[in-house]
Amino acid sequence: MINITFPDGAVRQFEKGTSALDIARSISEGLARKVLSASVNGQVQDAARPILEDATLKLLTWNDTDGKSTFWHSSAHLMAEAVESIFPGVKFWVGPPVENGFYYDMDLGDRKLTEEDLGKLEKKMNELAKQNNAYLRKEISKKDAVKYFSDKGDEYKLDLLQGLNDGEITFYTQGNFTDLCRGPHIPNTGFIKAIKLTNIAGAYWKGDEKNKMLTRVYGVTFPSQKELDEYLHLLEEAKKRDHRKLGKELGIFTMDDDVGPGLALWMPNGTIIIEELEKLAKESELAGGYKRVVTPHIAKENLYLTSGHLPYYKDSMYPPMELEGVKYYLKAMNCPHHHKIFAAEPKSYKDLPLRLAEYGTCYRYEQSGELFGLMRVRCLHMNDAHIYCSKEQFYEEFKAVNDMYLKYFKIFGIDKYVMRLSLHDPTKLGKKYVNEPELWKETEALVRDVLIKTNTPYVEVPDEAAFYGPKIDVQIWSIIGREFTLATNQVDFAQGRSFKLEFTTHDNKAETPLIIHRAPLGTHERFIGFLLEHYAGKFPLWLAPVQVKVLPISDKFLDYAKTVSQQLKKADIRAEVDDRNEKIGKKIRDTELMKVPYMLVVGEKEMTENKVAVRRHGKGDTGTENIGEFVNRISIEIKERISE
Amino acid sequence: MINITFPDGAVRQFEKGTSALDIARSISEGLARKVLSASVNGQVQDAARPILEDATLKLLTWNDTDGKSTFWHSSAHLMAEAVESIFPGVKFWVGPPVENGFYYDMDLGDRKLTEEDLGKLEKKMNELAKQNNAYLRKEISKKDAVKYFSDKGDEYKLDLLQGLNDGEITFYTQGNFTDLCRGPHIPNTGFIKAIKLTNIAGAYWKGDEKNKMLTRVYGVTFPSQKELDEYLHLLEEAKKRDHRKLGKELGIFTMDDDVGPGLALWMPNGTIIIEELEKLAKESELAGGYKRVVTPHIAKENLYLTSGHLPYYKDSMYPPMELEGVKYYLKAMNCPHHHKIFAAEPKSYKDLPLRLAEYGTCYRYEQSGELFGLMRVRCLHMNDAHIYCSKEQFYEEFKAVNDMYLKYFKIFGIDKYVMRLSLHDPTKLGKKYVNEPELWKETEALVRDVLIKTNTPYVEVPDEAAFYGPKIDVQIWSIIGREFTLATNQVDFAQGRSFKLEFTTHDNKAETPLIIHRAPLGTHERFIGFLLEHYAGKFPLWLAPVQVKVLPISDKFLDYAKTVSQQLKKADIRAEVDDRNEKIGKKIRDTELMKVPYMLVVGEKEMTENKVAVRRHGKGDTGTENIGEFVNRISIEIKERISE
Repeated sequence: MINITFPDGAVRQFEKGTSALDIARSISEGLARKVLSASVNGQVQDAARPILEDATLKLLTWNDTDGKSTFWHSSAHLMAEAVESIFPGVKFWVGPPVENGFYYDMDLGDRKLTEEDLGKLEKKMNELAKQNNAYLRKEISKKDAVKYFSDKGDEYKLDLLQGLNDGEITFYTQGNFTDLCRGPHIPNTGFIKAIKLTNIAGAYWKGDEKNKMLTRVYGVTFPSQKELDEYLHLLEEAKKRDHRKLGKELGIFTMDDDVGPGLALWMPNGTIIIEELEKLAKESELAGGYKRVVTPHIAKENLYLTSGHLPYYKDSMYPPMELEGVKYYLKAMNCPHHHKIFAAEPKSYKDLPLRLAEYGTCYRYEQSGELFGLMRVRCLHMNDAHIYCSKEQFYEEFKAVNDMYLKYFKIFGIDKYVMRLSLHDPTKLGKKYVNEPELWKETEALVRDVLIKTNTPYVEVPDEAAFYGPKIDVQIWSIIGREFTLATNQVDFAQGRSFKLEFTTHDNKAETPLIIHRAPLGTHERFIGFLLEHYAGKFPLWLAPVQVKVLPISDKFLDYAKTVSQQLKKADIRAEVDDRNEKIGKKIRDTELMKVPYMLVVGEKEMTENKVAVRRHGKGDTGTENIGEFVNRISIEIKERISE
Repeated sequence: MINITFPDGAVRQFEKGTSALDIARSISEGLARKVLSASVNGQVQDAARPILEDATLKLLTWNDTDGKSTFWHSSAHLMAEAVESIFPGVKFWVGPPVENGFYYDMDLGDRKLTEEDLGKLEKKMNELAKQNNAYLRKEISKKDAVKYFSDKGDEYKLDLLQGLNDGEITFYTQGNFTDLCRGPHIPNTGFIKAIKLTNIAGAYWKGDEKNKMLTRVYGVTFPSQKELDEYLHLLEEAKKRDHRKLGKELGIFTMDDDVGPGLALWMPNGTIIIEELEKLAKESELAGGYKRVVTPHIAKENLYLTSGHLPYYKDSMYPPMELEGVKYYLKAMNCPHHHKIFAAEPKSYKDLPLRLAEYGTCYRYEQSGELFGLMRVRCLHMNDAHIYCSKEQFYEEFKAVNDMYLKYFKIFGIDKYVMRLSLHDPTKLGKKYVNEPELWKETEALVRDVLIKTNTPYVEVPDEAAFYGPKIDVQIWSIIGREFTLATNQVDFAQGRSFKLEFTTHDNKAETPLIIHRAPLGTHERFIGFLLEHYAGKFPLWLAPVQVKVLPISDKFLDYAKTVSQQLKKADIRAEVDDRNEKIGKKIRDTELMKVPYMLVVGEKEMTENKVAVRRHGKGDTGTENIGEFVNRISIEIKERISE
C-alpha cells in the first residue's frame, strides 16, 4: 500500500500502482470525468499513470492552469492527427499549449492553408475526438525512435531527437497518430468537446529567419460548446473594447515615434480621467490620514545602490545619465525618495504611522517587443504611497489598505477579484528571503488575518514573496471576464534597515519601522486601459471627459444652449455645446459615438419653458426636466460616483 | 558747436569740449549733483570728460545700473586709499563693482584683517570722502606706468600692465591714491555719503588655487545715509526671510546628497502649497478655456532636434540615456510634447484657440556652483501652457494671459512688477531672428498695445527677443524690495513651422498657428522660494499648510478639541490638534513659531458653550466664536484667497 496526501493535508492509503484517475474514481465518477492530469509530488503527469510510492497528489481539472495546459497540448496532438489524415506527408515541428489555446508548427510542402482548410480540419478533429481514443504513453529507445521518424521522413522530429538521451524518450499515440512527446496528456480525446481553429501564421523554423518558414496553426478547445461560445463572445467583445482603439476614438491618449515607444501622451480627455482618479485617491488618502509629497524623477546611482534596485533591478531601469562624474538614473519606483523624506527629520513614535503618498511617475525599461498600448509601457504614473509604522500598528494599517482596495473595487464595479498572497519559504531564509523568521511568521499571519476577517477572496502562494516581506498581488477581472494584474501591496522589513530609518519608541529606544508599499489603483496607464475595456468607453458620469452635451435643434436655440451650458459649468459639470450647423439627428448620433452620458436637446418648447429634454446614453429619451432639477440630480450622481 | 541728442530724441547744440556735467548743469544744478557718469554714444565715461563731436547722451544717476556701477567702482578706489593710508605697503590686484556694492583684492603681507579693522577703514573712508577729492583721469605711456608701479613695488599691477598696450593706459587719482584704471569714475568723493564694509574673504590670485591667497574686502556705499539704512534693514529682513532657513523650519522642502544637488524633495507642508498653487492655476485655466494634458519627462533626441533645443540648448540639458541605439533626453521644456499633442489629430479653425496646459516637470542642467536653494534648481515644476491660435485671435489671447498675470499679482500682494518687453532688431532678421518682418512688427505692436491698454508697467528692450518672437520677462519685487525674475511670456512663430503644425482655415487653406508660451506662476520652486521671503513664512490662510490648530488647555478637553478639529476637516479646512501634554502657553508659542494662521484655544468655558477662543497669528486673541460661525467665516477667507 502507498500513502497519498491530498492538498487539504488528508492522507489515504491505496494499492501500489493505482493511478490518479483510479483515485478520482474512488471519490466520485463525476470527479473522474473532469480529471485532465495530476500533479504527483509536484510533477504534472498523465492521470492514468500508475503511482508507485507515497506521494502528494493534486488532481488537475479545467480550473487549474496546469490542467488547461494538458488539455490544450492534447488538442494540438488531435489537430496534428487531423492534419495528417487530410494532408498525408505533412511533417511536424512542435505543438505547445499557449495562454489561450495551442498551436502546431508544420511543414506542408508547397501547400498554403486556407480558411476553408481550417473548417475541414475542425470537422475532422470533431470526428476524431468523438472516437474517445486514449492518449497512450510509451517509453522507447532512442534507436527505435530515430528509426520511426526516419521511416516517416520527418527531419524536424529527428532534429528534436538529437537533443534527447536514451531513457528519457517517450511517444504518445492516439488513434492513428503518434508523436514524440514528453507529455502529459488527458486520458482520451473524448474530453475535447468544442474546437475552434483561430489563425494561420508563418513561423521560421527555430525562430531563425534564415530557416524555412513553417505553417503555424492556432486553435483553442474547450470541455463544452458553451465555454467555447462564451470564449468567442469574449474575443469579440474584447475586440470592440480594445483600449487602443477606444483610446484613439475617444481622445484619451496617443503615442508618437519622436517621443518614443511605451511613452503615452495623455490627451485632454485622458487627462480628465487621470485627474478624476487622482482626486478620488486624494480624497481617500486625506480621510485615511496620508500626507502628500512630491519627489524628483531622478536620483544619483548611490540612492539605488542603497535601495538595492541597483544592481538587482538594473535591467528594468533606463540607462544612466552621467553628469559631473556621477551617474543619475530615472526612478523606477518612488520608495527610495520617500525613505529620504522620512529620514529628513528625526521621528518618534508620535509621528507614526506616517503615510507618505505621491502621484508619482516612474520609468521602467520594457523591451520594445513587450510593449502593448497602455498595458505595458515605459512611463508609469501611479497613485503610490508608503506607510511607515510600528509592529503594533501593522495590522490596522494593512487592514486600512485592504479596505481601500475593496472600496475602489466597489466604485468601479469590479465584482471579481482575488488577492494572491505570496509567502516566504522558511528553508530559504537568509538567501531568497531576508533572515527574519519571526517577522515573516508574524506579518504573514496578520496579513492572512486581515484577508479572512474582511472576507476578501484570496489564494496563498508559497515561496513567491518579495525578498523583503510577504506581498499581495491583486488580480481583477473586467466585466467581460478578462483578467488583469492590477497592483501589489507589499510588506517590507528590509529597506527600513538599508536606509537606516528609525523612530524613537515610548521607552526611548531606536526602532526600525515596518514599511507597507501600496498602490491600489496600480499604474494609471494600466488602470485606464482596464477601464476602457471594462466600461467599453462608456465611462460613468463622474469619469466621463464630457459629462453633458447640449444640442440645440437649430441655430436659433444656440444662445439658449450656451446659457444652459454655462449653468452646468457653474456647477462644475463638464459641459459642451454642439454648435455645428448639423441636423439634430446627426448631432445625437455623433454624441452617442463619443459615449457622452447625458445629452440635452433644446428647441422652442424647452427654451420657452426654461427646460431641457434629457437623453441618457444607451437609454434614450428620459423626458423633460427644468435645468435646476437636472443639475441637482446629476451633481449627486457625480459626487457619489454612481456607476449606472 | 556740436549736436547733443537726448534719450527723448531732443537735440541741442553745445560748445565743442563741453562735458556731460556741464550739460547737466545747464539743465539744473540739482541734476548736476546727481550725475555719476554719462553714456556718450553708448560708451559709459566720466561725466567730466569733454565731448568733442556730435553725440547721443544719457546722463547716468543712481537710478541707472551703469550709474550705480560707477559709484561703487569709485568707492572701491576710495577704500583702497583708506587701506593704503592705514596699511602702507599694501599691494592691490583688482577692485570691481558687483551686484550690490564692490570689493577690492589686496595683498597685505602677513597681516590678517579683523572686524575692528573694517571699522577703522570705514571711518577713514568717511574722512576722505568728505574731502571732495576729484577723480582725475590721466593718459599715460606704458613705460611711465610700469615705472610707477615698479617704484611702488606692486607686482600685481605690473602683471595687469603686461596685458595692456601703449596708448590705452589710464591712471585715476583721487587724493593721495593713484590706480591703474580704465574708469569711468564719479566726479568726486563727496558723492559718497554712506559707507559699510560688509565682509572679509580670501580669494586666490586670478582664481587659481595654486596662487597666493589675497584678502578680499567687500563693501557697499550709498549717496545718503537713509539709503544705507534701508539696505541694511533689507539685508536683515532677507536673512530672517531666507527661504532655505524657513523652508527647513516649516517643513517645506529638503535636499539630499543621495538624490542630487538642485533636486528638491517636497515635504508634506511644501506639497500642500504646490497643490494649492496648482489648484489656483487649474481654476483660472478652466475658466480661461484651457485643456489639460500629461506628457512624459523624456523623449527621443529627434524631438529636440526638431524643436531646436538640440544642439542650441544642449548645455542646459541633462546628458542623454542611450537605449536600443536611440538617445533619450530629459525634457527641459514642455513645448515639444505639447506640439505633438496638437499634431495628434487634424485641426481646423474651429479647434482654435487651443490652450494646452500641463503641470509639467522639466530638468535643466545648472552648474553645481550656480545652484541656490529653490531659486536655482535642476528639477523645475511649472504651471505651463501653450496657446495655439490664428493671427486674428492673437491679441485677445495675449491679453487674457496678461490679465492672468495681473490677477495673480493681486492675489499674492505683488504690488511692484515690470514687464520687460524684448523686441527684435530689424537689421538681424534671418540671422538672430526668424525672418518674418511683418509678423515681428504686428505681434510687437499687439503686445505693446495689450500692455498699454491694461496699464501694465513695462519697459522695452531692443534686440533681446527670442529667436522665434517677442517675449516678456516678468520682474517682480518681494515685499522687502528684492527683485525676482518670475516667468517669461513668449510669442513663437517658428516652432509651429518646425513641427509642421497646421490648421484648416475658413476658406479651407492650411495655416500655421501662432504659439504663445506662458507660465505665469513660473516654476513652483522659484515661486515658493519667493513666497517664503515675501510672506516671511506667514502664508495667507488659503496657502497655509496647517490652517487651524486646536489647543486644549488640558487633556480634559482633548476630546472636545478633536470634535472641533473634525468639524473643521469636514469643511475641508486643514486642522490639527495639539495633543501634547504641555502647558497652554508653550502650545501657543510653538504654534506661533510654525506660523499657523488660526489657533483655537478650548477649555471648560468653550466646551460648555460649544465655542472656541480664537487667536489670529500676529494679532493675538480676537474673542470667542461659536464653531459654525468660525467655520463659515474662514471658509470664505479661504475660498476668496484673502491675504491678511
